[in-house]
Formats: sequence, structure tokens, C-alpha cells
Amino acid sequence: MSPTQPPVISLLTDFGTTDPYVGMMKGVILARCPAAHIMDITHDVPPQNVAAAAYLLSASWSFFPPRTVHVSIVDPGVGSGRRILAASCRGHRFLAPDNGLLTAVFSEARPEKVFSVENDRLFLKPVSQTFHGRDIFAPVAAHLAAGMSLDDLGPPIDSWVTLPILEARRSDSGEIVGSVIYVDRFGNLVTNVRGVMNVSSKAEIAIAGRVIRGLTACYAGARPGELLAIIGSSGRVEIAVNQGSAHKVLGVSEGGQVRITQRPETQ
Amino acid sequence: MSPTQPPVISLLTDFGTTDPYVGMMKGVILARCPAAHIMDITHDVPPQNVAAAAYLLSASWSFFPPRTVHVSIVDPGVGSGRRILAASCRGHRFLAPDNGLLTAVFSEARPEKVFSVENDRLFLKPVSQTFHGRDIFAPVAAHLAAGMSLDDLGPPIDSWVTLPILEARRSDSGEIVGSVIYVDRFGNLVTNVRGVMNVSSKAEIAIAGRVIRGLTACYAGARPGELLAIIGSSGRVEIAVNQGSAHKVLGVSEGGQVRITQRPETQ
Amino acid sequence: MSPTQPPVISLLTDFGTTDPYVGMMKGVILARCPAAHIMDITHDVPPQNVAAAAYLLSASWSFFPPRTVHVSIVDPGVGSGRRILAASCRGHRFLAPDNGLLTAVFSEARPEKVFSVENDRLFLKPVSQTFHGRDIFAPVAAHLAAGMSLDDLGPPIDSWVTLPILEARRSDSGEIVGSVIYVDRFGNLVTNVRGVMNVSSKAEIAIAGRVIRGLTACYAGARPGELLAIIGSSGRVEIAVNQGSAHKVLGVSEGGQVRITQRPETQ
Repeated sequence: MSPTQPPVISLLTDFGTTDPYVGMMKGVILARCPAAHIMDITHDVPPQNVAAAAYLLSASWSFFPPRTVHVSIVDPGVGSGRRILAASCRGHRFLAPDNGLLTAVFSEARPEKVFSVENDRLFLKPVSQTFHGRDIFAPVAAHLAAGMSLDDLGPPIDSWVTLPILEARRSDSGEIVGSVIYVDRFGNLVTNVRGVMNVSSKAEIAIAGRVIRGLTACYAGARPGELLAIIGSSGRVEIAVNQGSAHKVLGVSEGGQVRITQRPETQ
Repeated sequence: MSPTQPPVISLLTDFGTTDPYVGMMKGVILARCPAAHIMDITHDVPPQNVAAAAYLLSASWSFFPPRTVHVSIVDPGVGSGRRILAASCRGHRFLAPDNGLLTAVFSEARPEKVFSVENDRLFLKPVSQTFHGRDIFAPVAAHLAAGMSLDDLGPPIDSWVTLPILEARRSDSGEIVGSVIYVDRFGNLVTNVRGVMNVSSKAEIAIAGRVIRGLTACYAGARPGELLAIIGSSGRVEIAVNQGSAHKVLGVSEGGQVRITQRPETQ
Repeated sequence: MSPTQPPVISLLTDFGTTDPYVGMMKGVILARCPAAHIMDITHDVPPQNVAAAAYLLSASWSFFPPRTVHVSIVDPGVGSGRRILAASCRGHRFLAPDNGLLTAVFSEARPEKVFSVENDRLFLKPVSQTFHGRDIFAPVAAHLAAGMSLDDLGPPIDSWVTLPILEARRSDSGEIVGSVIYVDRFGNLVTNVRGVMNVSSKAEIAIAGRVIRGLTACYAGARPGELLAIIGSSGRVEIAVNQGSAHKVLGVSEGGQVRITQRPETQ
């Protein structure tokens, strides 16, 4: 690694930024890898919502430089003996509790190797029962960023917890049946329908008793206050309201169903 | 640039920090300019409030080191074909949508050069319709930080969108007529009356039916709960309440009027 | 300092992250110490709550690398003539207003030297009455990070403001009498009872009319919704609810009393 390419560590947690927990983790990292550039993805994952974290990580990781160490912690089972996973995918490294958080990353980029993090010589001592982010994840991430190999963290493993992936499916009649997997702060509803499912620009999108006719090219393509569907920045179908909140207008949150009918182009 | 002076990129947006959008931008920047120091000014500009962003940027940019690349995005027109501006002022570089966001900076520091960012070889592909922050602003900022010249971004231009600048004016009778341009989290009301308008320390400041007599030297110069006027940290007249919120006490928000009468010193 | 060990500055304030104040401070720091790694501990200390800041700093500082400059600002007296302290403890440096904010750090790690920051050649000019964070703390921190000695900041002093330390006490009957000193975002109640007070794993913890029997090893050691007591990540007794908020369940905030009775092990 050239001196002009400092190692990068990304952080994604449900710790919030009001408490000092994330700051402590950064201190621990810098004490072990002073050159690290530590980047927050977000610390406001809905508390203990592993599925939301899985989505947010999968939407974000590939924009970082190769060899980034992605530390992702939404960990209701901290202290209960659940394993911690270390994995490499397409040159990126990942650390996360073994609770399904890496499901979406692994479904997009098959992991080359997966290890169970057990080398406690790397941990802060004593390891607290409640804050493995500071005592295990942070020092291990720092060692990886400073050049340690994944092999040094613990034994290789070949099975791990997988979340049922909320991927949209195509019904027998050709309709796409999906659901909302994330509501962003603008009230945009991100669905699990990927643009690569060849959603027609003339499709009819049904949600919460409303029907949206066709995809719009940009938010400004609809009148203010108007409901619209768009292929969002994560490559998924999003339901939005120009200058408004689809979440509020429709009363739909995570889990809400969306059904997409492909209208024949020649009608 | 010496190896001890890493390039600096500042970010000011209305993206919030709950969603992963800002984190994605940082990933994109580091993938292209690994040495960059990326500094958040704020990501909590009131959504789509270009005037607030213009004020916040003008209050902040000059504290950063020369050659900083300031990326400012409040962009209701994303995807609609509005231009993106790149400019240099007093050795700093600026990237912003062409919607008036740079108005206040340009009124304080006349831009040396302004370009329309059109060199799409620098962009992430495909460019999404909804997230130019990640797909255009971030990679272009990284290239600038890594040494690219503004000339390489696109053609020079000589006109752009300007917001009506909310500068206070002096009436025929010598009274200063201004307005509140920003409410901070402490409830302090920042006005567009600059200290350089020679507001007398004995002035009478009228707002929301109340009159404040004279400027106070510091918050603690008033009794707890008392209304006061002060030349704030941005060099503007601010209305505050010691250990309280002027916003709540007066019920005044952005746009609220303030009138300042200079009392004769010898009365 | 080797070129691979950039200087570290930590920030802990009540400025919030909505306003641009923290961003301005970072700009000022980088303009004077371009290599600095600036790390946020938190900017959401409850406004003007010096005691909370004292706790949060004491819980965090020791995780950072030696020579870190810790800038901590909760400063109701800004502009009123209160002093600013610079101190060194166990190789770390601290800057804070002289209002008791360093009390907890000083009680854990006796300061080697304490100075009053008065060398105004280091300050931004003119120094505003309301934002010493930007005009004094930031440039002074940058100079320290860049190698300046504490001796150059101002005269040594041997007395300063000390907060009554909220340390738990042991009553004549052997009961531990403590109080809640911080409520984190999960609603966990952090008390001033340190684990080193030899709280028995069989102790009875009384709070808000409820009695918790024994310490739990981890949050998951209780049933969902169940109240529990645990030695938290700061080494203090914390009251929590598995997958819930003790703050909401008990209606207890900062200052709430907790009483711990050590039951004989052989009963």
C-alpha cells in the first residue's frame, strides 16, 4: 500500500451519534492503526433491525475503495455467544455479527472466505458483555486495516446465519410482487424490486390502494405533491412524492406490499 | 502539495445522516482521492432550502484552508437538467447546483472563474436520476482534490442563477430594516444585519413587538431568560435569550423582520 | 512523531451537528494542522449540562491514542471571563472551559500540569464573544496537535473549578447508595456505582420502587422486556431492559437514586 493510500474503515451501526460509543470505537481504531481513514455510513440504523442494516450495507459497500474494512454492527445478541464473522468479497473485507447482517452482500458478491473471529489476543481486555463494537470489532478492524490477514482472526467456517432475503418475486401471471424494505428520511419508499427485473417504463405500480402509471425519470418529472415511481439510486424501484413524503401520503412502512403489472407496450 | 498537507473536501447537504447517502459519497471520494480529508459542515440543512444552504456555506467556507473543495448540495432540481457549477474564489473551490446556492459566497468573494460541470468522463456510470451527489459531485470533487484543474470540468460560463440576497437595507430615516435568515439549534435568530453596518451599541432593536435596548457583549451579559441582541459569531446581529430560545420566546422564524434604530449617542 | 502517526484531536461538545459550528472548528483546525485526524466523540451533550459532559469525557478519553488532544466544550459562561484550561494526564492533552468539565478525568488520572490558556497570539482575530470553540479552542488544539508545548499556552495554575463528583457512597449498613448519571439513547440508565465497588453478583438493586435481583451477564440474559442490572461498558452498574428502555419503563432520568444491598453469598 502506498503512503498516499491510507487504509479505509467504514462503520455502520445502530449506536446513534448522541452517545459516545462510536467515538470510543474510533479512538480504539486509531490507537492501533493511526493512518486509518474512518468513514461513517450511518449510525442510525433502526435499533436492532438487522434486515435494514443488511440492506443499507449492500447499497453502500461497493462505492468504497478496494480493501476497505466494513464494520457493521446491529447486534441484539451481543454477549450471548453468537459468532462474529470476517469475510472477503471482491477485495473488500467485512466484519459483522453472525446474525444475517451480511446476507445481502453475500447474495450479490459470493464471499471468497469466511472466518469466525476468535483470536482474543486482538481484543481489548477485559471484553465487556455489552460493547463488542469497542472491545472486539474496533481492534480487529484496525489490525485488518494495518495489514493483518483474515486467516489470523480465527478458523474458516462454511456456514452462517442467513436472513430470508426479501427479494421480489414474479407471480405465475407475470406480475412482480415485492415489498418496501427501507424508508429514507425524505419518506421515499425503497422496494426490493430491482431495476434489472426489467420493470417496463409503462408498468402499473399498485401500493396501498393507489396505482402509479409508469416510471418517472426524476422527482421533478412529477407535479409537486404527486405520487411517482422511479428507479432510485440503489437501482431499485422507489415510491416517492415530488417535494413530499410517500411514507406520510400512503401510510406505508417497511414490509408494505407493492405489485407491479407490466402493461403490454403495444396497447 | 506537501505530503503533510492532505487535500480537504467539505460537505454541506440536506441529505441527513440517518440514510447512507453521505457515506456513499465519502466512499466514492476515497476511491478516487485516498488522501482526502473529508469534513462535514452539516447535512441537516432544512430540506430543499437553498437560501439556508447559501447562508450556512457563506458563514463557514473561509475558515477552511486554501484549496479546499467545498461541495454543497441542496438540489430540488436534481435530474431536471439544471447545470452544476464549479468555481474558484480566493483560492477555494466550490461545487454546487446552479440554483443560487453560491449567491452569498459570490457576493462576498467575487468568483475568479465559473464553469459548467459537463465532463461526463469523470462521472460514475450510469448516472442515476436522483443522486448526483454520489454520481457527479463526489467523483468530480475527488478529481479536483487530487489536482485536476477547474478548466477540465467543462466550459467556462458567465451567468448563473442568483438568489435575491437577503441583505438588510437602510431606510431613508436611517433605520436598518433586516430579517431573520437562520434559526440555530439553540433558538438564536441570525439576522442579515451585519456588524459592519455600524450598529450602535446603544441601538434599539425591534422584533415581534418587543424592543431590545443596546447590544450585549456576551450571552452571560443578560439575566437568564432575558432577551438580548449581540454581534454573533458570523458577524451578524443575532437575537438570543440567555439560557433560553429566542425562537420560542418570540415565535419568530426565518423571514421575521427586525428594525434597528440608531439612537443618538448623546441623549 | 512518525509520518504514519498523524496527530489526533477528539471533539466533545453540545453544539449539535445541525448547525455549521463543528464544521467551522474542523476548518480552523485543518488550516493550522493539515495532518490532524479529527474525531467526534459526540456533539449532542445535553445543552449546557457540564456534568454530563464530564461523565462522557471520562468514559471515552482513555480509548484514544496517547498524545490525543481532547477538546471538550460545554460552556454556559462563554464570553464572561471564565478561564480555559489546558492539562496533560497520562500523556493525553485536554482543553476545556474551567467550569468543572474535567473533574471526572482529573479524579481518575491526576493531571501532571494545568495551564490557563491566555496566549492570544494563537487565537483567531477578532475573538467573538460567543464562539470560543472556533476562535480559541480550535486554533489552540491545532497548535498542540502540530507539536506546541502546553507551556506555550499560558501560565501554570494550581486551582480550578471542581464539580461535586457524583460518586456512589457506602452507607453505614454497607448498602451502596448511588444515582443515575447518564441516560443513553437505548434508555439504559448508567449509574455512578463502579464495578470496582465489588457489587456482588447476587446483589439486590433497588430503583424506582422495583428490585432487581442479581447482576446479569448480558442483555440477552434477561427475557425481552425484563428489567436487568449489568456491569456496563463503562465499568459502571447500568439498569437496562432487554430489547426495551429502562428509562421509559421506570420513568427514571439523571439524578434518580439507586440503592444496592449486597446479599450474603451464603443464605
